[in-house]
Amino acid sequence: MTATPAETADAVELLGLVAQLEHLAFARLAADAAVAPTAEHRIELSRFAAAAVARRDRVLDRVAELGADPLAAMALYDGVLDDFDARTEPNTWWERLLTVYVGYGVADDFCRLAAAGLDETSRALVVEVLDDAEHADLAVAELDAAGTDTAVSARLALWGRRLVGEALGVVQRLVVQRPGLVRLLDARPTGESTTVAGQDTAAPGAAGQSAVGERTQAPANQASSKLFGELTAQHTRRMTRLGLTA
Amino acid sequence: MTATPAETADAVELLGLVAQLEHLAFARLAADAAVAPTAEHRIELSRFAAAAVARRDRVLDRVAELGADPLAAMALYDGVLDDFDARTEPNTWWERLLTVYVGYGVADDFCRLAAAGLDETSRALVVEVLDDAEHADLAVAELDAAGTDTAVSARLALWGRRLVGEALGVVQRLVVQRPGLVRLLDARPTGESTTVAGQDTAAPGAAGQSAVGERTQAPANQASSKLFGELTAQHTRRMTRLGLTA
Repeated sequence: MTATPAETADAVELLGLVAQLEHLAFARLAADAAVAPTAEHRIELSRFAAAAVARRDRVLDRVAELGADPLAAMALYDGVLDDFDARTEPNTWWERLLTVYVGYGVADDFCRLAAAGLDETSRALVVEVLDDAEHADLAVAELDAAGTDTAVSARLALWGRRLVGEALGVVQRLVVQRPGLVRLLDARPTGESTTVAGQDTAAPGAAGQSAVGERTQAPANQASSKLFGELTAQHTRRMTRLGLTA
Repeated sequence: MTATPAETADAVELLGLVAQLEHLAFARLAADAAVAPTAEHRIELSRFAAAAVARRDRVLDRVAELGADPLAAMALYDGVLDDFDARTEPNTWWERLLTVYVGYGVADDFCRLAAAGLDETSRALVVEVLDDAEHADLAVAELDAAGTDTAVSARLALWGRRLVGEALGVVQRLVVQRPGLVRLLDARPTGESTTVAGQDTAAPGAAGQSAVGERTQAPANQASSKLFGELTAQHTRRMTRLGLTA
């Protein structure tokens, strides 16, 4: 089955987002490495930063394979996290770790959900790229240690709620501004939704992807509420893993 | 020929410096990527940053192979470029590029010269690691473009002179503080000096490395002036490559 030009354009729209997020993860992890409390953290975070560059480049290679311009695909999302960053300036090392864990957690979940609508090669790549959980493991280990203190826990739980609010705001803007991402979300097989417990609302009636720009608004709203339900559920799981109230 | 414990300690002293410089190059390149003028530069500099992490890790692996603690070896040089960075805050993108090109150029030359006194495996590694000239190529290409303007050229030439002064100051402090590095420089085969034209002062009478802490001062001074002559000659070559007056 050959992808239509419209399908390829949508795939590039998502791959550009994933590439931009990996690039921003690089920048963020490098900045975190610069202020990390120990040499071990500096080393570890610099390795994560380098790994994000490698992941970004694999995604950019796929964009080129699809015949599109990698830098133009990324450029669609220039400044995508500027608001998020400006509103979530961390005050402590733990808040800093949580910012990446939650902020990129939500963004990655969004990309993972949209990836279900991609061609098989692109989907496998995105899923593999987003599955790198090393930073999450560091965050969990560190925040576990921090979490033994109730006052710190309460503060971090609050911070987590602020982060998820801002992160969902980013997703909201993406959904409004980038119809290709919405089409990919809609194109997901119905079975996909079962991965998130408690979110068994009916899948939107995706009628294929050929009619670009012609999707009706009602299913979009339905899809949107389903999407935010799924993202919130994943966030809750993530916070629970840290022993924090979502 | 097995290395003596003293020789191994000296090797670790140099490898720690190379690892620290690669780590600092990562941090610097990541920061440069964050303020680069175009997406192409951001991408390219992030790749250089990632490559510096990989190079640092290869050097740290060698430290571990030699039975020493990689982080402790790096920690010998914590803050080694703090003064240099504080005194050479670049004002323009070109000054920024030149800062890395010249600053790390001098530091790399110093490490390359000292590497001649290393065991063969360590020496081959250091030479290979320091031979990665990708950033230099970027700097040269960019500064070439900048250099067509005489006023910019004059300004950059001045900047280069300031940079090399500060960089030689860093080397001066290293030579004073880390006798292991001086022993490695002294242990170079006499032929090594022929790689730098016009610096044919006699090699210091290195009497082997077994008598740690027992080296006389006279050859150290001689070696020091020879060293700075070599570093300055390399700097001049580097500036000439840019069409700038050293």
